[in-house]
This record gives sequence, C-alpha cells and structure tokens, in this order.
Amino acid sequence: DNLDGMVERGYAGQSIWDWWRLPDYKGPRYTDYARANASIGINGTVLNNVNAKATSLTAPYIAKAAALADVFRPYGIKVYLSVKWTAPMELDGLKTADPLDSQVAAWWKAKADEIYRAIPDFGGFLVKANSEGQPGPQDYDRTHADGANMLAAAVKPHGGIVMWRAFVYAHDNPDDRAKQAYDDFKPLDGKFADNVIVQVKNGAIDFQPREPFHPLFGAMPKTPLMMEFQITKEYLGQSTHLTYLGPLFEETLDADTYARGKGSTVAKVIDGTLDGHKLTGIAGVANIGVDRDWSGSIFNQADWYAFGRLAWNPDLSAEAIAREWAAMTFTPDPKLVKPVVAMMMGSREAAVDYMTPLGLAHVMGTGHHYGPAPWISDLARPEWNPVYYHKADATGIGFDRTKSGSNAIAQYAPPVAKMLADPKTTPEKELLWFHHLPWDYRLKSGETLWDGLVHHYDRGVAYVADMQKTWESLRPLVDPERFAQTKAFLKIQHREAKWWRGASIAYFQSIAKRPLPTGSDAPAHDLDWYKAQDFPYAPGNP
Amino acid sequence: DNLDGMVERGYAGQSIWDWWRLPDYKGPRYTDYARANASIGINGTVLNNVNAKATSLTAPYIAKAAALADVFRPYGIKVYLSVKWTAPMELDGLKTADPLDSQVAAWWKAKADEIYRAIPDFGGFLVKANSEGQPGPQDYDRTHADGANMLAAAVKPHGGIVMWRAFVYAHDNPDDRAKQAYDDFKPLDGKFADNVIVQVKNGAIDFQPREPFHPLFGAMPKTPLMMEFQITKEYLGQSTHLTYLGPLFEETLDADTYARGKGSTVAKVIDGTLDGHKLTGIAGVANIGVDRDWSGSIFNQADWYAFGRLAWNPDLSAEAIAREWAAMTFTPDPKLVKPVVAMMMGSREAAVDYMTPLGLAHVMGTGHHYGPAPWISDLARPEWNPVYYHKADATGIGFDRTKSGSNAIAQYAPPVAKMLADPKTTPEKELLWFHHLPWDYRLKSGETLWDGLVHHYDRGVAYVADMQKTWESLRPLVDPERFAQTKAFLKIQHREAKWWRGASIAYFQSIAKRPLPTGSDAPAHDLDWYKAQDFPYAPGNP
Repeated sequence: DNLDGMVERGYAGQSIWDWWRLPDYKGPRYTDYARANASIGINGTVLNNVNAKATSLTAPYIAKAAALADVFRPYGIKVYLSVKWTAPMELDGLKTADPLDSQVAAWWKAKADEIYRAIPDFGGFLVKANSEGQPGPQDYDRTHADGANMLAAAVKPHGGIVMWRAFVYAHDNPDDRAKQAYDDFKPLDGKFADNVIVQVKNGAIDFQPREPFHPLFGAMPKTPLMMEFQITKEYLGQSTHLTYLGPLFEETLDADTYARGKGSTVAKVIDGTLDGHKLTGIAGVANIGVDRDWSGSIFNQADWYAFGRLAWNPDLSAEAIAREWAAMTFTPDPKLVKPVVAMMMGSREAAVDYMTPLGLAHVMGTGHHYGPAPWISDLARPEWNPVYYHKADATGIGFDRTKSGSNAIAQYAPPVAKMLADPKTTPEKELLWFHHLPWDYRLKSGETLWDGLVHHYDRGVAYVADMQKTWESLRPLVDPERFAQTKAFLKIQHREAKWWRGASIAYFQSIAKRPLPTGSDAPAHDLDWYKAQDFPYAPGNP
Repeated sequence: DNLDGMVERGYAGQSIWDWWRLPDYKGPRYTDYARANASIGINGTVLNNVNAKATSLTAPYIAKAAALADVFRPYGIKVYLSVKWTAPMELDGLKTADPLDSQVAAWWKAKADEIYRAIPDFGGFLVKANSEGQPGPQDYDRTHADGANMLAAAVKPHGGIVMWRAFVYAHDNPDDRAKQAYDDFKPLDGKFADNVIVQVKNGAIDFQPREPFHPLFGAMPKTPLMMEFQITKEYLGQSTHLTYLGPLFEETLDADTYARGKGSTVAKVIDGTLDGHKLTGIAGVANIGVDRDWSGSIFNQADWYAFGRLAWNPDLSAEAIAREWAAMTFTPDPKLVKPVVAMMMGSREAAVDYMTPLGLAHVMGTGHHYGPAPWISDLARPEWNPVYYHKADATGIGFDRTKSGSNAIAQYAPPVAKMLADPKTTPEKELLWFHHLPWDYRLKSGETLWDGLVHHYDRGVAYVADMQKTWESLRPLVDPERFAQTKAFLKIQHREAKWWRGASIAYFQSIAKRPLPTGSDAPAHDLDWYKAQDFPYAPGNP
C-alpha cells in the first residue's frame, strides 16, 4: 500500500494502514487484521507497495511500522518493508546506490540496525529492482545477486531475509517478455546469499486469468524460490466479479516442472522439498482495504482464505477449501454449501472463457486493466500492447513461443518443452500462449479455432447467468445484506462478461473475417462503440 | 468529495461514495448515512467537491447520483451537485461558457432536464465560480448574478435552486482579501433570481479557528444568504484534536450585525426572519469518511451533531447540545457528562489559544494547513502567505483593517464599525484581526500585548494537559476502545499544542525581540527546527 493511503491494484477501498495517525493511534482494525491472518497461518506482512518510496525508511515511518509490529507480534506475524533501491541517495545524499560501493553497503547496514532497534523481530526487505522503472543494481552494471546479497548482509546479523522479486523485463530488450525473467535470473542460480529468497510470480507475464507456470520454477535448484500469487483480482474482475481463485492457485501449485522427473511440482519447488531448501515462502498480493467486508466483496474473502490455507497445505483441494469457507461464512447447511461451492469452482474458468480463452492473455485496457481492449497497439513499449500478446492477423492468432517463434518453451524442462512444441500435445487451455494457429485450425472438439473461441466466450457469459439463477435460489438461506451485495455484483459481472465477449468478438472478427457459428449472437455493439468506452476514476490504478 | 474517492479537507478516510460500483451496488453505509443525517434534521447533501469535475454531469454519473437519491429519499434528504462552470465546453465542445450565450443557457437547461428525469426531486446546483482558479462568469465579463440566474432558470421549472458561493478573491486584486467577497457581491444585492441563494462562509477569510462574522451578513437584505460552516476541521486540528465546534457555530450565529438595529443577529439573517426571505439554508462542509467512527474521531461526531441541531434551532446553546451528545454517545451518567461537556466547551478556545490567539489567523503551513508556519512569505500570491495576515514587524503585530489600513471595518453596519475602529472597544479575542498594535500595547489585563500573547499560548497548552487528566479520570466510565482512541488523540493534541506554541513563540520572538514573561518556558526547539518540519502525505490536501 502507498503511504498516502492509495492501494495500487486495490479494489477494497483505501489502505488499512493509517500512516498519518501512527504510531500514536493503533485502531482496532489492526488487531482484527492480525487475528484474521493468524487464523489461516499467514505469518508475515509487507506493509508498503513494492513500488516503494524512500520515505518509508525514515525514522518517523520506522516508528509507525514498529507500532504495527507491536500489534501483530502476539499473533505471530512479522513485519517486512519494501525498499527503494535509491533510498541512500534520496534520504542521505549518497552519490551512488551501487551495491558494491562500501558507503552504500554501510548505509544499508546502519539502516537495518536502526530498524531492528525499533522492531527486533523485523522480517526483512522485499525488493522490486530494475523493473517497470524502478531503480536497481543493474543501473550500476551489477547483477540482481550483487544487489540482493548486499542487502542480505545488512539484515543477516539480525536474522532477517531479503525477498528479491524476479518480475523483470526491460524496455530495451526486444526478446519475448515472457522469457526475460528466466534469462536474467537463471544464470544467477547459486550466486545468492543464503538469506535471500527469489520471489517469482505464478506465470511469466503478470497475473493473467490463466498463465502456464513460470519457467523459473524448477530451473534454479540452488536458490530458494518463493511464489508470488495475486489475491487482489487486477485481471479477474477486480472487486465485483465472482471468480474464486482457489482453482488458479491449485493449478499452479500442482503443475509439474519435471525438473527432477515426473512429480516435480511447483509446490515441491517452493516448499523446499524438491531441492532441499529450508528457507521457503509464499506471498500473496493482498486484496484487503477499508471496505466493510475487507476484500471488496464477500466472495473475495474466499481468495484470502484459500491463499492462507494453501500456503501451509499446498495439497489441499480448492474445492475442499471452498466448502470450508462457505460453511463458515454463510451456513454449514448443504443446501447452501453445495450450490455455492459449485458456483465458486467454475467461476475462474468462466472468467477465462469470457476474458481470455484458449491461452490468450493481456488483452485488457491500459492502466486500469479493467475491461477488454485487444485492439490497443499504440503504447510506447511493444510489450505493453495487447496486440503484442495475441498477434491476431489474417492468418490466425496466438503467440508462437516454439522454435519457430520466441522459443520460450526451451526454458522449461525437456519433457515439458517437448509437450509444448506441438499444438496437438499442448493443453488446449494454453494453446494460444504457445502457438500462432490458423483461424481454421481444428480443436480437439472438431470445431475450428474461430468457432471454438466464440464458444468459449459464449460459455463464460452463460456461466455467469447460471450463477445469477443459483444465487437467486439461495435467497432464503442468506442474510439480506450479503444477498443484496452478491446479487448486485453478479448483475455487474453478467453485464461485463457480455461486454468482454462482445468487444473481443467484434475485434477478432474484424481480423478473422469469419461468420459467427450458428447459435452465437452478434455483439450488442459495433467495434467503434467498444473502443469508445471510457473509465474515468477506475480504482487501483496508480 | 472527489470522484476518485479523495476527500479534499477530509480527515476521516476516503469518501463514502463508492462511485465506481454505483449505481448497481448500494451498500448499507448509504442508508446509515441517511438515517444519521435525518435524525438531526439534515435534509440535503451535495455529493461532490465544489472544486468540481465536469464528469459528474455525464450520464453515467447522473445515474450514480440518482441511485444515491433513491436511498436518501425515504429519509427526506435531497441530492445536490456541485457544477463546473465550463462543463458545456468540456463535455459537449461548446465554444464558450458565457452565461448570456443562448447555446450555453440551452445546454444547462437540457442538462437540468436530464438530471430531473433521473432525480425528480433533485435539489439543485452548488457553484464555486471565479474563486481559487475555478472558472466562472467573470471570465466573460459577466457578474456572479448573470451566472447564477442563468443556472437558476435551468432548474426553476423543476423547483430547483442554485447555491452560489461568495467565497471569492482575485489574484489581481491588491485589496485586503477579507474585503473582496463583500466588494463583489454587495453591489449585486437585488439582482439574483428568486431561486438563488448566496452561500457565505462564517468569516471573511477561510474557516479559521476564530473569525469575526462575515460582513456580507446583514449587507444584502434583498438576497437570501445561507451560512457555510466547516464541520471538517481543516484549521482546528483535523482528525485528532478535541476541539468541539459548537461554540464556534454559536458565536457566529449569535453575532449581531446591527443591520436593522440591535438584535439583527446572523441567525436572523440566514433564517430569513430579518429581511423576510422564504428561501433559507445552512451548509456544513462535512467531516464524514469511511473511518469506522465516520468522522475521524469519536469527538468529531459531536460537530456533525451540533451542526444539525443548530441548523433548525439556532438559539440552542452549544453546551446544551454537548450535553445531549455526550449522554447519547457515552452514558447519561452525570459523572461522565459533566466533565466531558466541560472539556468540550473550552476546547475550541484552547485551540484558538495555542494556534491563533487575540485575533491572529491563517498562520498555518501551506497546502496541508496542518501545523504552524507563521514565517512563510514566499508564495506566489501575497494573500497565501501567513506574513500577509499577521504583519508582525519590529513595531508590532496585527492587520490594520481600520481607516488607516484596509478599512474593512467600513463593510460592517455603523455601530459595529464604530466599535471596531478603536482597539479599546474591539473585542480582545478579535484584536489583531482589526488592528496592528505595538508589542507593548496594554491589554485589558494590564499586561503587554507580547506577554499576553505568550500567556494565551501557555493557556492553550495547559488546557489540553487538563483534558488529558480529565479523560484519564473517566476511564471506568468509557469502553476501552473509545477510551483508547481519545487518549491517543489527546496525546497527539498535547504534543501538537506545544509545537504550535513553540513555533509561534520562536518566530514572533525573533521579530518582537522581547523576553518571555516570567513563568513561561522557552520553546523546546529553535526556530530553524520548527521551520524544518516536514509532513509528507498529510491527509485532505489536494
């Protein structure tokens, strides 16, 4: 969260951290927050945005963080801070932030000492460096390892750790964005200090409705890797869509990297068992704000809950977790739990269907990431544009990541790479992530790619309509306030699912130049109408 | 409130209007808000900031406002909107916003019709025009009356009104800022349409801890005037200082304008009885946000309550209102009510004492208006600088508004002007507002102005220390959560009262070059320390 109370990619109101009145005033919400987290095993919290301000390392802000740490300590929750790489320059006028400069290292050591005096059990630093405009060690021709290890040395005497994010891509690198984190980090395997853990997003792009597992998982056996999931639903309907993330988390954790043969799941990479690491972790970009329901909606609470449950038990099923959550949240009555769990379990796939089916990704509007905008092609950096990702043209659609394309598949272990080399053996749900295919390519169902794409959009919309019916049938079993909220949100979701479908079909049809399959309705508007939609004051957009 | 959820001069968290999820989702807070207001007789709400965006007049935002109006209607609360003068140009490309242009008038008429189709009982428009950078009719060489009347004609067929603010001062007007609203509006008396009401702040500057009543009250007998109080405490300690505003409201309402002889109180001007107006009103700049306690603190709720009570009964005493509020909020037990009311009743005077005693004003820090900065002299417009207001120099301190100065006193009715012409007959609490006096001027107490000034600062700090003791003694009578909040805030207030005192004395002593009176402690820091204080991310600051 930002120091001014704004939450980047937050859809549940402003930050619960009242920095202004800290450290003096510690409102009851902090304790509620700690209890809620402790109840599902969450044992650490990073207080500020990874796009960090140096101000959070000043004495007044350390005192504020210490006040929160005091509230959280009885609940077993440690405090961490995101740091800005150039803090020594901004706060104390150092001439450089070169990690190999002795003054810089001394500054961070003194800063760590200062923090630990205020917060003896401080957890450590989280760093977003050389990524999306953030400064970092590469600005001084040093590696991520050089940077991480310098910080690690500062917190090491106190038992602290450094979580170094692998979410990097460079404006001057023309290679496939999906490959860049691997290319930067894989060569550094074994070069990190033993209190550094590298934090890797679940997929190689950015928290899309569906991404294949990140190729770094399994590729850095000498380095502890931790998972970064996004609990806040930047790309999955934000606060209002009912899209339960349990299946997304489960799908990634269960994915098999084949790094040490079959069964080398992502879960085993990050829990340390595959490569024998003791330093392990899993992070979730929180969906919490000051909204009365904490998460922007009642059902978004399930994502927070599922994250905590899976953090300690990655083998749990998303469905079992949904059952627990629904029973505790509404009523254990199976007349409610069964249909609610059914709704939840298909809801993420429905969002994939109406937003980005068959392996499409990153086709949302610029900045707010709220609605569909697959037509955008005029942004400064190629990899910011949706057209970069879907590559739709007269011949077909999809991003060729095989040998004939970016060859990103070579970053996976050979059995995985082999499977992904051929569209016929590639899971259809990831098809267009890895392959550029003709519009008339035949799917397993026998229908053409174009027809299948349209049918996915149709299915997504229909699923939301079904959820509306199910929810209406549950009216007698839910209190009026929560019933009304979910009903209102499902109405929004249905309207927006139709909007996603309509905009996507209108745009892709203008390129594919094929008729809609029989039974599929034309979009409600023409392409120009969809392009003209405007969303001032969309939340969470920095 | 702003459309992005920020509340300008809000200290209770972000806006309670969730524009993004309106009109679909109408959370329970809207009903709670309506009930709370209705319980004290508040019958209208302006949804957006007077520094308005044209976006609030677009179809989607009218639908959002209509959804709120639907919630409020059963509680007797009407919705109003602030409008931006240039909306016809921004939204529909008109070439001008000249109020006498027929296309402009037609645009506003059509817009009013559109709004009334969605909100049949829409209240009308609030306008900040030609003030602090906002556009207005003067940009086209038209008067405020020309502008107000054009809008008034648009809403007239629907029974709507226009609230036109008199808070104006011009960057190119070298005259005393305190005189400019009167100079602009007094000549327009009688020229406003019968559904226009001119909204006047309680004082001629801007919601200072103390201001003499605004000279426009009583000076425009042919025009309905409404009061604009500030409930949010921009200049009175924001969320954390316990400074009950009841006495401030009461002082202004009871002030005698002498417009039609003795007893022509401000209350009688605005309730219409003095000049026979039927259109009457009183507005409060709200202190409401998403904070759990609505107002940023438990005690700030009393200001919202007192505003509502005085709106319908201006003859009520602030003390009686405080008693009602304390009994309903905590317990009717006199062991609590008596000391709490005593604390409250002296608290605003204490803030005047530690911030701006003896008629000083506008000596706060730039932008955030949070702490003391009487030294500021480098802002672009003279009337933005604290030194413009206190005019301290080697010879003395205060703003000469008599004949030998700006002659602002001539804007008051003759009996008032006569009283204010002489420092000896000027109420001492307003002394330096009207007079520039030597540091050794003798106050009624016999002490010098300098010594008296210092003693006021001393008294303000001591009062807060006393409130801390009183509150501590009430621990057995208050629940732990609210006890803890108020205790924490009183600690902040005490620290900040000392800071105000220290900074003010350090600065004025550097000019007055006189020793502190016996028994008064030197400031804790030197002037440079006070000047170096910095407040990043201060709330409410646009």
